Amino acid sequence: MSDWRDFGPDTLSPPLRAALVVFARHGYHGASIRMIAEEAGLSVPGLYHHYRSKQAILAALVDTAMDELFEHSEAAVEDAGGDPVARFENLVESLARFHMARSDQAFVASTEMRSMDPGVRDHHIAQRDSQQAMLEDTIRAGVDSGDFACEHPEDAARAISSLCVSISSWYRPDGPLTADDVVARHLHFARGMVGAGPGRRGR
Amino acid sequence: MSDWRDFGPDTLSPPLRAALVVFARHGYHGASIRMIAEEAGLSVPGLYHHYRSKQAILAALVDTAMDELFEHSEAAVEDAGGDPVARFENLVESLARFHMARSDQAFVASTEMRSMDPGVRDHHIAQRDSQQAMLEDTIRAGVDSGDFACEHPEDAARAISSLCVSISSWYRPDGPLTADDVVARHLHFARGMVGAGPGRRGR
Repeated sequence: MSDWRDFGPDTLSPPLRAALVVFARHGYHGASIRMIAEEAGLSVPGLYHHYRSKQAILAALVDTAMDELFEHSEAAVEDAGGDPVARFENLVESLARFHMARSDQAFVASTEMRSMDPGVRDHHIAQRDSQQAMLEDTIRAGVDSGDFACEHPEDAARAISSLCVSISSWYRPDGPLTADDVVARHLHFARGMVGAGPGRRGR
Repeated sequence: MSDWRDFGPDTLSPPLRAALVVFARHGYHGASIRMIAEEAGLSVPGLYHHYRSKQAILAALVDTAMDELFEHSEAAVEDAGGDPVARFENLVESLARFHMARSDQAFVASTEMRSMDPGVRDHHIAQRDSQQAMLEDTIRAGVDSGDFACEHPEDAARAISSLCVSISSWYRPDGPLTADDVVARHLHFARGMVGAGPGRRGR
């Protein structure tokens, strides 16, 4: 990856991009294979050639998003080197940027948990948990190094993840805040949540 | 209201409670008037006697929740008297408790924004904005009094609201954390987010 901060245009295949549009607009249960095929400019059998069911499309869509988030998050942490605070901050930044760049995918993944078959849901929860565990690890490392004062790293990791997820519900590229503004403010909030003190690192 | 911390059992009418169950399980678009009527133990004409449409049911359900939240929030702030920090903390606590006690209603309100007719959605957004403005006011008052160090009260209010909303997606009454644990941790996070310092007020 050239730059973990840069998400660029999404890399979805045409059927998955069509499904994203239809799911975001009508919800999974309100969407039909026919609607997705029409949006993708495919015939219904053509769509079935790629995916065996609406459920398989939902699974592929959510998987693609989680893979992308995980890849950027790993690169963000690696880029920070050994400093616990920088690892934490880069990881929060990658979460915030993902939820701005991929807001529709994040919205579908979080609102359609109830629509996932048990196997698909379990896999998605495991991916989300591992993402949250990565954040928890950086918080624990910051506590160990004396940079953070945080009694409940697990709860802080969940809270910061939730906060970053919620960005996808209101952020608009043409809104009053730039992506960099959103990142700066959420880094500030996240530092406050782990007891890092607002002024540290001169931000 | 006897105690703003106590939400008690919900006060939904049988058709609204039935609609909540059906919307939470299938989504608005996947729900039918027939499914709601069956869940409520009513005939379809019987349900139409109460509500003229599925959209009217969604509007009534969301309104009921927002009215209840607003009532508890106003009582919480009033109960705090004139102290800005106590007003902020009580308001955050009422938000957190609401999202534990009314998690299904909060889930439906946030995931079904896209399903609301424009008039219904605008009304809901206005209610949410006024709730957030109440929180922003308490943060500004705390900044003015020198208790908080917060450069962007509007963003902090949105972030803290979002964080409290997210509680409804994971909190379970039979889970490892009690409601009081959840409140204490979120008060701690919220204080960190407005630069109040973790140790203040001896919590």
